[in-house]
Amino acid sequence: MHAYRTHTCGALRAADTGKTVRLSGWIHRKRDHGGLIFVDLRDHYGLTQLVLHPGTPGFATIEHLRAESVIRVDGEVIARTPETVNPNLPTGEIEVRVGEVVVLSEASELPLPVFGEPDYPEEIRLKNRHLDLRRETLHRNIVLRSQVIQSIRRRMIDQGFLEFQTPILTASSPEGARDFLVPSRLHPTKFYALPQAPQQFKQLLMVSGFDRYFQIAPCFRDEDLRADRSLEFYQLDVEMSFVTQEDVFAAIEPVMHGVFEEFANGKPVTAYPFPRIPYREAIAKYGTDKPDLRNPIQMQDVSERFRGGGFGLFARILEDKKNAVWAIPAPKGGSRAFCDRMNSWAQGEGQPGLGYIFWSEDQGGWGGPIAKNLGAEATDALMSQIGMGQGDAAFFVAGDPKVFHKFAGAARTKVGTDLKLVDEDRFEFVWIVDFPMFEFNEETNHVDFSHNPFSMPQGELEALNTKDPLDILAYQYDIVCNGYELCSGAIRNHLPEIMLKAFEIAGYGPNVVEEQFGGMLNAFRHGAPPHGGLAPGIDRIVMLLAGESAIREVIAFPLNQQGQDLMMNAPSEVTDKQLKELHIRTVAPLKA
Amino acid sequence: MHAYRTHTCGALRAADTGKTVRLSGWIHRKRDHGGLIFVDLRDHYGLTQLVLHPGTPGFATIEHLRAESVIRVDGEVIARTPETVNPNLPTGEIEVRVGEVVVLSEASELPLPVFGEPDYPEEIRLKNRHLDLRRETLHRNIVLRSQVIQSIRRRMIDQGFLEFQTPILTASSPEGARDFLVPSRLHPTKFYALPQAPQQFKQLLMVSGFDRYFQIAPCFRDEDLRADRSLEFYQLDVEMSFVTQEDVFAAIEPVMHGVFEEFANGKPVTAYPFPRIPYREAIAKYGTDKPDLRNPIQMQDVSERFRGGGFGLFARILEDKKNAVWAIPAPKGGSRAFCDRMNSWAQGEGQPGLGYIFWSEDQGGWGGPIAKNLGAEATDALMSQIGMGQGDAAFFVAGDPKVFHKFAGAARTKVGTDLKLVDEDRFEFVWIVDFPMFEFNEETNHVDFSHNPFSMPQGELEALNTKDPLDILAYQYDIVCNGYELCSGAIRNHLPEIMLKAFEIAGYGPNVVEEQFGGMLNAFRHGAPPHGGLAPGIDRIVMLLAGESAIREVIAFPLNQQGQDLMMNAPSEVTDKQLKELHIRTVAPLKA
Repeated sequence: MHAYRTHTCGALRAADTGKTVRLSGWIHRKRDHGGLIFVDLRDHYGLTQLVLHPGTPGFATIEHLRAESVIRVDGEVIARTPETVNPNLPTGEIEVRVGEVVVLSEASELPLPVFGEPDYPEEIRLKNRHLDLRRETLHRNIVLRSQVIQSIRRRMIDQGFLEFQTPILTASSPEGARDFLVPSRLHPTKFYALPQAPQQFKQLLMVSGFDRYFQIAPCFRDEDLRADRSLEFYQLDVEMSFVTQEDVFAAIEPVMHGVFEEFANGKPVTAYPFPRIPYREAIAKYGTDKPDLRNPIQMQDVSERFRGGGFGLFARILEDKKNAVWAIPAPKGGSRAFCDRMNSWAQGEGQPGLGYIFWSEDQGGWGGPIAKNLGAEATDALMSQIGMGQGDAAFFVAGDPKVFHKFAGAARTKVGTDLKLVDEDRFEFVWIVDFPMFEFNEETNHVDFSHNPFSMPQGELEALNTKDPLDILAYQYDIVCNGYELCSGAIRNHLPEIMLKAFEIAGYGPNVVEEQFGGMLNAFRHGAPPHGGLAPGIDRIVMLLAGESAIREVIAFPLNQQGQDLMMNAPSEVTDKQLKELHIRTVAPLKA
Repeated sequence: MHAYRTHTCGALRAADTGKTVRLSGWIHRKRDHGGLIFVDLRDHYGLTQLVLHPGTPGFATIEHLRAESVIRVDGEVIARTPETVNPNLPTGEIEVRVGEVVVLSEASELPLPVFGEPDYPEEIRLKNRHLDLRRETLHRNIVLRSQVIQSIRRRMIDQGFLEFQTPILTASSPEGARDFLVPSRLHPTKFYALPQAPQQFKQLLMVSGFDRYFQIAPCFRDEDLRADRSLEFYQLDVEMSFVTQEDVFAAIEPVMHGVFEEFANGKPVTAYPFPRIPYREAIAKYGTDKPDLRNPIQMQDVSERFRGGGFGLFARILEDKKNAVWAIPAPKGGSRAFCDRMNSWAQGEGQPGLGYIFWSEDQGGWGGPIAKNLGAEATDALMSQIGMGQGDAAFFVAGDPKVFHKFAGAARTKVGTDLKLVDEDRFEFVWIVDFPMFEFNEETNHVDFSHNPFSMPQGELEALNTKDPLDILAYQYDIVCNGYELCSGAIRNHLPEIMLKAFEIAGYGPNVVEEQFGGMLNAFRHGAPPHGGLAPGIDRIVMLLAGESAIREVIAFPLNQQGQDLMMNAPSEVTDKQLKELHIRTVAPLKA
């Protein structure tokens, strides 16, 4: 017989009745019932109920053992009586009558209980992650993570992609977030950096003649932590050669759809092709470039209904050309109470208030100050334009859309959520496309790149030479799911001439570009294919599929909010010898 | 028609004759033939021959383009005449008569040619890795690497393993090689370390109740570089719960055998179960714990043949009990010339010489000084014991085996290689088992761990309490292939009591163990399963399969021998702002 087990704790069925078996696992729960001891024995695969009779050698052994001790048992599989069958447990038709028990590892008192997984402070959970990870929910999340990544890999390989590893010890990059640095022992005063993303390497792989690259790539950003962000994270890094934006979409949509459908537990997932919404349209309809399409509300520009009209406040605002009035329809929101609540919420958000029109049952018509000022006919026309009628309401935001769109988007979310218009049980995907290449930086009074300086501008060199920079769009795109940005991507600028021109528009001379991106430029001068890609965030995908809102619930050994590993004691002090070898000294900050 | 291609450069066949196609790729080679231009157009998938006729729009465009420029061509697929068919090329039955050529990216002068891949200095290759990677051999190696890793993953998953990610920002570990450190911004004067291996995490995963873990894990060691070692490398990290050593072997053998067979191009691969050779037997037979079993020579202890015998030098040496005489059989090595050559080689290795007996055709019997001194009868008996006869020879090493075994092993290799006894075209696997748990450190005059302090001693606590430490074996094992150590592994010590005792024997008090490995010990006290694993080196596996002897030939973007990325300029200087944020200062070494 095997030293530890003939079966796992999830394996035995009614058909095994009568077999002599050996199981090993953790004591999940122990109960005393009329002189018998019942034990739920747990391993990775499941639970099996053990029964120990007084007088058997195992009984005495197990009596004093704490939960989470690891034991090996020998016994006989017994069919449970019909009334004791547990239909919720795959092994629920049987139990094992145990003869001998061998203690493989005795548990001392536990700082964190496993059974029942009661709520515990995060610090205790992270310090005892080995116990936390035994708990059903977290254990399942980590297995889910593994399965999701495996599924992504399989789907990418099926689409003809090859996975390559890119360096983790690499160069500090001047753009983007803050780098983690690694002092070099062999090159005093110099540093490696951990990659924020393998962006340059994946582009170099394309220039090197590989056609379809992917990697489940570890990435590092030394940024302050949030619930949905960690210092190290994984992305599905993708790059393809000889492709247009639509080719990238066509390659990745089946992967994202397939993975979500596989693990969505029956929740509907957007069929592909996913909708494409231009950036400016997303801002106008949803107030954000990360719209949650589970919320059916679409905002509308209703400026023309107010221009020179009876509602003086809006009419005056509209006298400034850059201003507009947007409507947020609120189907079935037609009550003064709801509108007042929204107005108070807006004030809580630092707004002067939130204009509204609501269907008043009392009046049998549109109520509220705006309706009163606008007049019945104009109000009817306005509300009918945005599709609102009896029982509905609408909210209005006026001013400079550049300034108010974020708030308007938040109001849209609030209306949708409060009116229960959002179907939580689905995954709604959308591509946001046509991001502007440049934006005007009010602080520096200068044109900047809006997102990725390495994206190809639509219209290429001609556009850069002839158009207003702020009118130029980029071949740049995001995937958004349920309001979360899962990734951004782009068709890259593979032509040095266009790259230098784009940087010139953003105020960088050729010497800066050569100095900071010389490796890439050099490569592009030796024959570069048109290429593009994207990089969905793995942790966030798993978080969505697990229904969790903190990234630490889908990472086996996460750092805490202060960036510490409480189990391994990282970061920690190192020896003087280590520092000396690395040619560095620490400088403790001055105490206040 | 697609913006870039209707087919890849590896796709077209005779059946496509007559089709209008669009291809994109690199100009691999351009030839002028009787007024026509022939171009081999290359992409990741293959080569297609293009023909351009004078007067077509494409002809003028392509005339002045350099090799490695990227073009898009439109043209018609033409069947080649039988005498111009190229049977070595999948597309060799056709060519494409090109009408239009669009230049997607013009190549400037190349620092490194791609076509024909002539030898170039490593520095130029690494600085222009984007060109180097386009060369056939390296391109193929990197694709092979991707396929090997994919195959390993598939095989591990098929065996019921789950892949998990463990932290890359973790704690500095007191044992092992030198750590790379990462200064913490949030915790001044403290450091993360990059993992030398996820050893503790994989054990914690087992203690957390996961059953079969693997990871293609990046590992980091700040050690001086060699051809077969790099600062960052990948290992197939494996750990299993409730297993004996044989279970680990049974799980990993089909994976290793399968991967090697899949990519060995028909070379034979050891059938599994692989042979198991105890460490002491390996040293005695092969002089090393990394024996290359393609070399059929096995050494033998022939002390008894010399003890008190006619060959005074050996007889005297054998008077010291710790000494021995080993024989290295040399089948078909029976010539004075070969034996003299070996003797000279030994002197070059710093040895006084190498004793030998050879078959002398002249004498029709055994020749050489040893045979002469030993006498014909004793020589016959000796040579017959080691299986040598007419036409053969043998070499002899005498002294303390602890001291001479390495040299004896090298002599075995030299004899096998020079006599062409080694069949290069096969992969010979072997497990080396039963490593000693402790060794005597002559320098400190103290007992030390021989390898991994976390291995389970055979005989467990009882052995530690009762046996001479130097007689205790560990459940520790290596996989060796063709003389390369592919990995080491062990059944772990999961019991704190045994761990504390083992450390005590090696001279470490409980406070040291608690301080340095407190996280692990703490976890083991909350119920730990018996577990074990191993970690084959991925880069080395790919190196073997690619038939390369330098690890840089199987890594897309390796650092050079000085640990520099010549393309990205890493390591490099960073800004004062960065250093200040990290609370460190650099200390330039004093100039000589």
